[in-house]
Order: sequence, then C-alpha cells, then structure tokens
Amino acid sequence: MSSTWKSNLSLTIFGQSHGEAIGMTLDGVPAGEEIDFARLDAFLLRRAPGNAPWTTPRKEADTPEFLAGLIGSEAGGKTCGAPIAAIIRNTNTRSADYDKKIPRPGHADFAAHVKYGGFADLSGGGHFSGRLTAPLCIAGGICLQILERRGVKIDAKILSVNGIADDYINEILRAKEAGDSVGGIIECVTTGLPGGLGSPMFDGMENRIAALAFAIPAVKGIEFGAGFAAAEMTGSQNNDPFVLRGDKIETATNHHGGILGGITSGMPLVFRVAIKPTPSISLPQQSVNLETLTPTTLEIKGRHDPCIVPRAVPCFEAVAAIAALDAMLQKRGTPCRYH
Amino acid sequence: MSSTWKSNLSLTIFGQSHGEAIGMTLDGVPAGEEIDFARLDAFLLRRAPGNAPWTTPRKEADTPEFLAGLIGSEAGGKTCGAPIAAIIRNTNTRSADYDKKIPRPGHADFAAHVKYGGFADLSGGGHFSGRLTAPLCIAGGICLQILERRGVKIDAKILSVNGIADDYINEILRAKEAGDSVGGIIECVTTGLPGGLGSPMFDGMENRIAALAFAIPAVKGIEFGAGFAAAEMTGSQNNDPFVLRGDKIETATNHHGGILGGITSGMPLVFRVAIKPTPSISLPQQSVNLETLTPTTLEIKGRHDPCIVPRAVPCFEAVAAIAALDAMLQKRGTPCRYH
Amino acid sequence: MSSTWKSNLSLTIFGQSHGEAIGMTLDGVPAGEEIDFARLDAFLLRRAPGNAPWTTPRKEADTPEFLAGLIGSEAGGKTCGAPIAAIIRNTNTRSADYDKKIPRPGHADFAAHVKYGGFADLSGGGHFSGRLTAPLCIAGGICLQILERRGVKIDAKILSVNGIADDYINEILRAKEAGDSVGGIIECVTTGLPGGLGSPMFDGMENRIAALAFAIPAVKGIEFGAGFAAAEMTGSQNNDPFVLRGDKIETATNHHGGILGGITSGMPLVFRVAIKPTPSISLPQQSVNLETLTPTTLEIKGRHDPCIVPRAVPCFEAVAAIAALDAMLQKRGTPCRYH
Amino acid sequence: MSSTWKSNLSLTIFGQSHGEAIGMTLDGVPAGEEIDFARLDAFLLRRAPGNAPWTTPRKEADTPEFLAGLIGSEAGGKTCGAPIAAIIRNTNTRSADYDKKIPRPGHADFAAHVKYGGFADLSGGGHFSGRLTAPLCIAGGICLQILERRGVKIDAKILSVNGIADDYINEILRAKEAGDSVGGIIECVTTGLPGGLGSPMFDGMENRIAALAFAIPAVKGIEFGAGFAAAEMTGSQNNDPFVLRGDKIETATNHHGGILGGITSGMPLVFRVAIKPTPSISLPQQSVNLETLTPTTLEIKGRHDPCIVPRAVPCFEAVAAIAALDAMLQKRGTPCRYH
Repeated sequence: MSSTWKSNLSLTIFGQSHGEAIGMTLDGVPAGEEIDFARLDAFLLRRAPGNAPWTTPRKEADTPEFLAGLIGSEAGGKTCGAPIAAIIRNTNTRSADYDKKIPRPGHADFAAHVKYGGFADLSGGGHFSGRLTAPLCIAGGICLQILERRGVKIDAKILSVNGIADDYINEILRAKEAGDSVGGIIECVTTGLPGGLGSPMFDGMENRIAALAFAIPAVKGIEFGAGFAAAEMTGSQNNDPFVLRGDKIETATNHHGGILGGITSGMPLVFRVAIKPTPSISLPQQSVNLETLTPTTLEIKGRHDPCIVPRAVPCFEAVAAIAALDAMLQKRGTPCRYH
Repeated sequence: MSSTWKSNLSLTIFGQSHGEAIGMTLDGVPAGEEIDFARLDAFLLRRAPGNAPWTTPRKEADTPEFLAGLIGSEAGGKTCGAPIAAIIRNTNTRSADYDKKIPRPGHADFAAHVKYGGFADLSGGGHFSGRLTAPLCIAGGICLQILERRGVKIDAKILSVNGIADDYINEILRAKEAGDSVGGIIECVTTGLPGGLGSPMFDGMENRIAALAFAIPAVKGIEFGAGFAAAEMTGSQNNDPFVLRGDKIETATNHHGGILGGITSGMPLVFRVAIKPTPSISLPQQSVNLETLTPTTLEIKGRHDPCIVPRAVPCFEAVAAIAALDAMLQKRGTPCRYH
Repeated sequence: MSSTWKSNLSLTIFGQSHGEAIGMTLDGVPAGEEIDFARLDAFLLRRAPGNAPWTTPRKEADTPEFLAGLIGSEAGGKTCGAPIAAIIRNTNTRSADYDKKIPRPGHADFAAHVKYGGFADLSGGGHFSGRLTAPLCIAGGICLQILERRGVKIDAKILSVNGIADDYINEILRAKEAGDSVGGIIECVTTGLPGGLGSPMFDGMENRIAALAFAIPAVKGIEFGAGFAAAEMTGSQNNDPFVLRGDKIETATNHHGGILGGITSGMPLVFRVAIKPTPSISLPQQSVNLETLTPTTLEIKGRHDPCIVPRAVPCFEAVAAIAALDAMLQKRGTPCRYH
Repeated sequence: MSSTWKSNLSLTIFGQSHGEAIGMTLDGVPAGEEIDFARLDAFLLRRAPGNAPWTTPRKEADTPEFLAGLIGSEAGGKTCGAPIAAIIRNTNTRSADYDKKIPRPGHADFAAHVKYGGFADLSGGGHFSGRLTAPLCIAGGICLQILERRGVKIDAKILSVNGIADDYINEILRAKEAGDSVGGIIECVTTGLPGGLGSPMFDGMENRIAALAFAIPAVKGIEFGAGFAAAEMTGSQNNDPFVLRGDKIETATNHHGGILGGITSGMPLVFRVAIKPTPSISLPQQSVNLETLTPTTLEIKGRHDPCIVPRAVPCFEAVAAIAALDAMLQKRGTPCRYH
C-alpha cells in the first residue's frame, strides 16, 4: 500500500535508482487519446539532470520505452484504453561505493532501515530517489497532452531559491562551491479547468494534489491560493468577491486559489510547494554506524545536485495534470450527466 | 468518491449542517479496545462552539450516540471489531433565512452550485460546514484513546492568530467587534510513534495526514517539520545529524519533522496548518445573484465565529491520530512480522 | 478494511443484530435524484421477516430513518450530492440467552472468535447476521429507483429450493416441521443496461457483482450466463452468434449473460447465486466448548427461518443495482465523454 | 479503474497480447523475502502453451524479466520492499490478419468496441487475452513462495472437462479434431492457512478470491466449499460439526470450504471455478460486420487451444496465493497484534 495511487486513474510507480529500470503504469486513461512522443520527451527533458551548470553532470537517458496501452508509430500513439506502461532503463550500474551502515542525514536511509529491516535497496536512494520522479513525469506528461486538447493549461515556475526570488542561479552556484545545497519554492498554476471538479472532504482537489505532491521527495509543505498568508488576513481581505465577467461568474481576487470546499470554482487553480535543500552535500556530517552503534563522521562522495528546485518544476505540472484529469474523469454531481 | 477515506481504517463522514444528524462510520479498528465516553466527550467539547466569549453563542449538543461497533455500558464500551458508527442529532431546524441564490464569498456555495446543479443542501453550509468536523473528532478521539494506551501522545496548539503569536485573543475580539474574522496557524506534535511507520510515494505519512487535514474546511496549507522555512535553509543547516541517545538513534535536530521518505523516524511527528479567516462576516460583501445574473451586495445575517482557530485545534489531533493508527495497522515491511 | 466498499459509489454497512441500530452510508450518488420512500419501503418489505408462514415470526420494524444526503418531505426526497445515511433501530434487546462459549455449526461464531479474540458481538449473529442485508437493500433500493428512471429493470426470482423448482413452499414447510432448514438458488436478471459498462480484469461487472454478492451471508457460489453449465458445452454451443435486430447488434443466445470481457454487451445481465440452508436449526448439533475445550451437543433455542431464500431475493436485486449504478458512474472509455 | 487491484497488496497487470510486452507490478510485499527464479519459471511453465499435444503450438518465451523490487543474482533475489515489477516481451508481431470489423462470438471484441469506440487494441485479444494471465501467475508465483515458507500449500486440479472427470484428454483431442473447443471445472485447495484471516462483508475471503478469479477470461462461475450443491442440502447435512483434533478445534466435514462469515476457519480453503470453452474455434460462426451492419459468417484462421483448462490450473493457484498473502498482511482483529 504505498506506490500505487488508485482513484479514477490508477498510477503505480516502480523502480530503484540503480535497479534494472524505473517505470510507471497508468490505468483509466480513456481510449483514443493521441500521445506525441516528441512533446513528451521535451517535457521529461525539463527534469533530466545534466542540463545546467548547477546540476549533477550525471547524464541519464530518460527516454521512456512504452510497453503497453498505446497503438502507435515511432512518432507517437493513441491510447487503446488498456493500462499504459512505460519504463526507463537505468544506465548506472549498482554503485558499490554506497555504505548502507551509515545513514545519510536528511535521507530516507535510516527510516527505510527501520521499516525494511536492512533489506531495502538504498543504492542511489533506491525507490526513495528523486529519479523516481521521472516515471511520475511520464504519467503527468500524458495527462498534460490530454488536458491541453481540452483547453487546460498548466504552468509551474520557481518563486524563490534559498529565499531569493530573482537571480537565484547565483544562490545555487554559491551552494555548489561551498559543497552545500539549497531549496526553494515552486508555484503551479492551472488555468482552463471547468468549475465543479472535485468533492468535499477526502477527495477534494487539495487532497488529491497533496497526496500526489508528497510523493515527490524533498517536498516539506504545500499551500493553496493565499495559503499560509491567509492566516494573517481578515475575512474581508481574504474573501474573494464574486463578479460578472460577461455572463460568467468569477471572483475579483483569487485568494481561494480556484478551489472552494474541495471543488474547482473555475478560477486558476494555484498551489505552491516548499522544496528542502538536497540532503546530499559534500560537507562532513554527523551520523551513527548502524552496526557498531558508534558516532561517526560521514563524507558523501561523488557530485550531487546543489539544488533540485529547477529540475522539480515539471514534476508539479505532472502532479497538477494527474489530479486534474483524475477529477475530470469523475462524473459530475448532477443526474443529467449519466452514462 | 468523496466523503469516504479507505486505507487500513475506513472512515466515512456524513451529514449536513441543518439535516437530521451528522455522523461517522469507522471500520478497521481492532476488537477489544476500550473507549471511555467521558474522555471522548471532553475531547469533543474542545471543538464545540459557545464555550468562549469569541465563539458563536449557538449551543450544540454534540454528545455522540453510538449505534454500532461497541459492546458497552453507559460509561463506555469495548470495540467488537465491527464498524463503529456514531451520530450527533442536529438541534438546529432547517433555517429558512438562507438565500441559495446569492453565493457567499469564501464559502463553498458557488462551487457546490456548479457541481450539484443547485440541488446541494447548503443551509448552514450543508455537508461543507465546519460542523462536519465533529464526526471527524469522534473518529479521532477513538483513535487517540487507542494510541495513548500504546504510549503515543498527540498535542496541537495555536501558534498564531492573524499573525500574533501571544495574546491573540484580542485579535479575535477586535475582529468580532469589526464584524470581521481572522485565521491562524496550528501546530500538531505526535510523540511516542515507533520508527518505520508509513511508506514511500503515495501512502507516506505526509500523504495520509494531508489527505485527512484538507477535509477540514478553511485549511489552506500544511507543512511538515521545518516546512516552508526549509526552502530558505542550506542542506548543512536543514539536515538533521544522527546521534546516539543511550542505545537509541535519534536526530540532534528535527527539521525533518519525524518523517523521512514518508516513513516515521521515531522523532516527534510535527506538522502545521494554515487556517483561513472564517468566510462568514457581517460586513457587506460583493456577490452575484445566480438567478438574475446581476451584481448584488450580500449581508450575512446572524452571528458567526470571528475565528475558528481555537475550536479547530482538536480537529488536527484527530487527523494525526487517525493517520497514526492507520499506519500502525499496516504490517511492517519485514517478513518476520506476518500473521 | 471490511464493511466499506469503495468504487465510484462508496458503501459502508454497519451495525450488529442486537445493537442499537443497523445502517448504511452511500456516497457518490449524484444530486437531484428523487427517492420515493413508499416504494423503498415496499422494496424493503420483501426481505423483512414475518411476512410468510415459513419465516420467523419475529417482526422487525425495518422502516429506515434517513439522517443525511436527502432534502425532502415526509413522502420522499431528492439527493443533494452529500453522502446518504440511513439507519434502522433495533427493537430486539440484547438477548441474554446467547451462549458465546459454544460456536454454532455453519455460523461465523468460531471464525469470529478466532479473529476478534472473543470480543466479537455475536449476539443474534452480530455484524454477521442476515439482518445486515437490510441496509444493503436500502442502498440497493435507492440505486434501483435511479436506474429505473433510466430504463434499467432488475428482477430476481427463486429458481429452486432444496433442488425443487416448482412448489418449493412445501420443501420449506417440511424443513420447518423437521426443525431443519433448506437453501436454494436465485437468479437475477438486469435488462436495459447500455453496452460498454465495466472493465476488463479487476473491475469487470462480474468482479463488482461478486464482491457485493458475497457480502450476503449464506452465499456459497455465483455464476454468470451459462455459468457452470458452460463447462459442459462446446465452443460452438456456448458462443453466442451476433445478429441484427433492426439496426441494433445483439446475440441470438445469451450464454455470456450480458458480459463479455467484464464489459456489458447490452444483452440482459444474468447471474445466479447458491444460498446454503440456514445454519440455525433446532436439531441437536455437535460442537465444542471454547472454554473447557470439551465436545458438547448444542441445541439452538428460539424459532428461526427454515429458509431465507425467499427473503434473500430482493438482496440480489440490490446487489445488481449497486453494481450497475456504480458502473454507470464510471466515465466511458472514449475521449468524447469528458467532463 | 480496471487493471489495478488495491488491497493490502497492490497488483497492476498491463499489456496487450501483441504489444511490446506484458507485465505486472506488485506492491506491498514485505522486504527480505527470497524469490527462487527457477521455481517461479517452473510454475509459469505450467500455464505456458505448446507443452501438450492439445494446446496451441505457439511457443511463448514466458520467462519474466524483473525490473524492480528485488535485489538479486541470476538465480533469484530478495524482495527489498519496493514495488516488484516484471515483464515478458512479446515475440508475436502485431498480426495483420485480425479483422476488427467482425466481432468474434464469445470474445470481448464487441463489448470492447462499444466501450472504447473502436480504439481498442484487440489484436490477439489485446488486454483481454488469456495471455495476460502470465503476469497474474508471476504475482501469484511470488506469493506462493512466500506462503510455502509459512506452511501454506496451494494445489489446483482439473475436476472435469466437458463434463468428463476421468480421461478427459480425449475430450480435448476430439474437440480439436472437430475444430471445436471444450471447457471444464477446476478446484483449488489451500491448506495451512491460520484461522481468523479475512473479514465480514466486502473484504471476506470469498470477495477477495472472486474479485481476482473473474480477472481470468473464461471464468463463468465460482463456488466455495459445497457451493451450488449446498443449495440442495438441508442445514443438518450442510452444517459442519465442530470437533476436537488434539487441542485443535476443527470441523468433521468441510462444506463451508474453510470460510465462515468471510473469515478463515483453519480448515482447507476450497473453491471451484467454471471455465467456458475457448471462444476461438475454426468452425464457421455467425456475426455482424460493424461497419456495414450486415450479417456475415466468420471463420477464425490460425490454430487455437481447443481447451485452456489444463493451462488455467496454475492461474487459480496464483489467485488463491495472492488473496491469502493479502489477507495475511492485514492486521488481526485483536488489540494485542499492533505494530
């Protein structure tokens, strides 16, 4: 009960960072939907490493191989209604250098060790690796193409890195030089969603988006609309007045972030996530040897992303797209909408 | 697919604010667990209205009636393994004064109207009302008693109201006088949890807690551990060093908030939520008449909570308790733990 | 994870035979659906005891009280989109005469004792009682009314009792005289379903119906279309030729029972269930005292249904209706059908 | 919502008969479980075609490739707690000869056409093909090895083919000569299960097993214990008396098939399934051209299994194993069993 999300869509993400392959299955996508591989690859490329001076030089060949769910050509395919399955082969061999005995601060190593009794494959982060966001982006990229044909647009962008809103690239380079790392905040905006999507209580749009967003390692918080700032506003400031735009009812402001009572209002759906700094840093860190139960100083070898925020941006577009398509596949609340 | 949460526990919350009754069913609770009604009532009383100068004077008789799942006496009962069901009768009659034609800014009225085509029961907020957190607290209060017998302690408290950390009561009274409202931030800390609870990806502790927390109206954001502040820290600041406390491995700091890779580390599980100001205010607000499609000014009659933050505190203890017990009911990852 | 079924509809059934009340919550029913209480009561009356010479004389007041999900009058109501909740109060007091120490052959007593460690409420069968089919029929009766307005008709009937197809009432009376009991076979036919409902694999129509049907105590088997008889037919006999009826494609025969590959074909959906004889009989039976671990002879006091088959008939109409509406609430596989 | 089954285990089956690959993901398997590939291959070989005179000569290379979830060697591996993913490459190229316009009687073609609007990949049966039982057997074979180490044994066998219990091979050969096909009945017995597994209502052992069994094409019915025969027995005949075997409580007979109230009794868990004759036969059959809407006679080219019953036997051991392990991963009902 962990790596499968079952709603109207069913998404399973599998693989370990240094295993044979990573991949995903996505079930529930209607038949007849066109998938353009070039556009999907372009989307995936946005999260691939090695494309900027500050990211890890490791090159990953992240072009997915589709095994099921499409009838297609080289250039793309059409969904056939069966579960879509795609994999990405791992080119990294199982790194011998990883030391399981000493948990890395900020990583899942220790918790995984407690849960899996030492059987966990933690090499390269295993199933907990940020690399597992690649299959998430495959699923999201598919949903994005379907949504775009229906006038839904999803854009995520960096709001700040290490607290710096503009020119934050220097923050990343500075952290890199220092052998340290930095985090940041990403905002995702979905426009063109019809009103009436989602539900109250446990299947509201926030619940769906949060349940998907926290699958992305390093996410420490999520907020919708005005978010935490709303806690410092009065009702008269935060309430969004209803106004007429032509014959359409909208709100003059969008502190509610496009969601009221878990249901879309038709206004842009806005959420922000907090990304913690990459736990892998070259600076020496204090840890404990799990076998000898003695304190030890850990120095993580190899080169790592000083900041994953830029690469994480498309991951939240993926999250927003999966949640939006999932909600659109749910029948409306009104009786007129039956099969 | 909305008001039922199905994991190891299955929770369904039902009822409308002015309907016959509100209630909950909770399935999956092991048999033989003692439930003390007096302690449960004391817990529920913390979210009941009318217990402080600043809350609405409406008195609700929120003592639950247990219909199923317990074998018991007047004073309490023992779970029998069957689903637990409890209801609270509504004493408020269906208010005639509520005007469905004019959606209240900040409320679910408009979105519900779009989704349910005007069939929604929005009187008093209907199924979207904060009153529906009473059954959530019944479920949570039951889980709390089970957890406490296993050394798990859960405490939530107000961090700030309208940005004021101390003496925030004046903020509430000031808002009340002004016919306005204020929100705030609540922090919930769970101690005594074993390590190894939860999972990576979609059933991590954050995912579970967020999926439950966003069922509470007015929640606009949630963060774990350092949360959004982690986005302004470096890795060397945010990573929690592992240290030995006797023969137990802990972390020197707790920026991770007791969760690593979706799995509990054994450190206190810490999350914070942002509560928006109560949308119901007496100040005139701009809205649109859904029938005539003309702009109109809305003045909400009756007296309302100028701030629900104090009453919301136990709701998040309930959320934490349900998520924790749900995770404890999941088999550990190791083969030694089979049936 | 037991008494809640979550698909497009979410159904929770709660209560013990001699507890305060039994009931159900049904979530996911679209808003604006009219529910006629008189017709619902008439449907429920078909499973109520005491309405025939051969059934137990116990009179149950099985008129449901609706607590949530409807906006209505005395005569009925309209669904409002919120979860529907209804209960039936138990008039039977907790019978003191039930002896937990001696499991009744054919009952769930022993298995429940092993699972719940003796905490189970088995008085009158507890949560395992056939009485719990009353809430199932409330849910099914609601779905039936919705389906009927869309041209779907569901009829179940007795095929045989104790192997006798005609005049089986004497079989029941003979069993009653002998202090024994008999079972039988019920067939349920659903007509008017559109083709294309359901899915391959785990959410096929058979899977849904079976998952609901086995919630009814005493069901020992289920078959679709030709069922077990198909195992003795050749392909040329069992395959249903496609034929034209006007411009509609149908099959000349219906051995497939209206389901091909888990998906409705548009032909009548036909299934049959085997009902075992009521385990409660007055004849002495061999059992074991759970406390003393000594063999003992059990004589079950009180009067019991010598055959529940007649009362079970509407339960399978309920099962068929819940499964059909659930499938109709699922989006079609084709892209044209989006929100 | 179709090819993913989510309970304590999460199983997704993907692939089309003539697509790139078929495969499965299985999540929730505890870490540290040894998987012996040779034994798994031997298990899979039992369902592979081409191993008997009466089966289709098509040779499939059904050796699975494990992509995730195991840390291992050539000979096998240990589960690491992450989702297990395995695929089987399809060697058959997409057959050009399949005619989508004319639905084959007894096949899913027509229903799939209605549901997927003609986008379905039905070549070789597509996602509806019996070939998809190979990944089901991979999942089941893994569960079997885990269960066997805990003393659980699962054996399925043919009871009859075309109504013939003994020497049924001639039935198959006769059907083959005639260009026809035959079905049969398979019985599966699980021994060594502890009592107390499963639940009442919707997650009973019957519900779980049926939900998995009907994922196998050609299954038209399922029965437990005495099954349909119980409908012709009296209570005094069908009730299983409790007896002492040493200090263990068992039943003298096993008409209940090891399940009482959805919960295991500790007696052998017995179920039988009805398999319809293979729909693919060479005899001419009546159908309708979906494009021209004219009656037509269909002659299916190529050679097909005259009987899939022998190859289906291990599939039901797989179903029983998945259901049993899933139930064993559920916490017992008693409070002593917490984490």
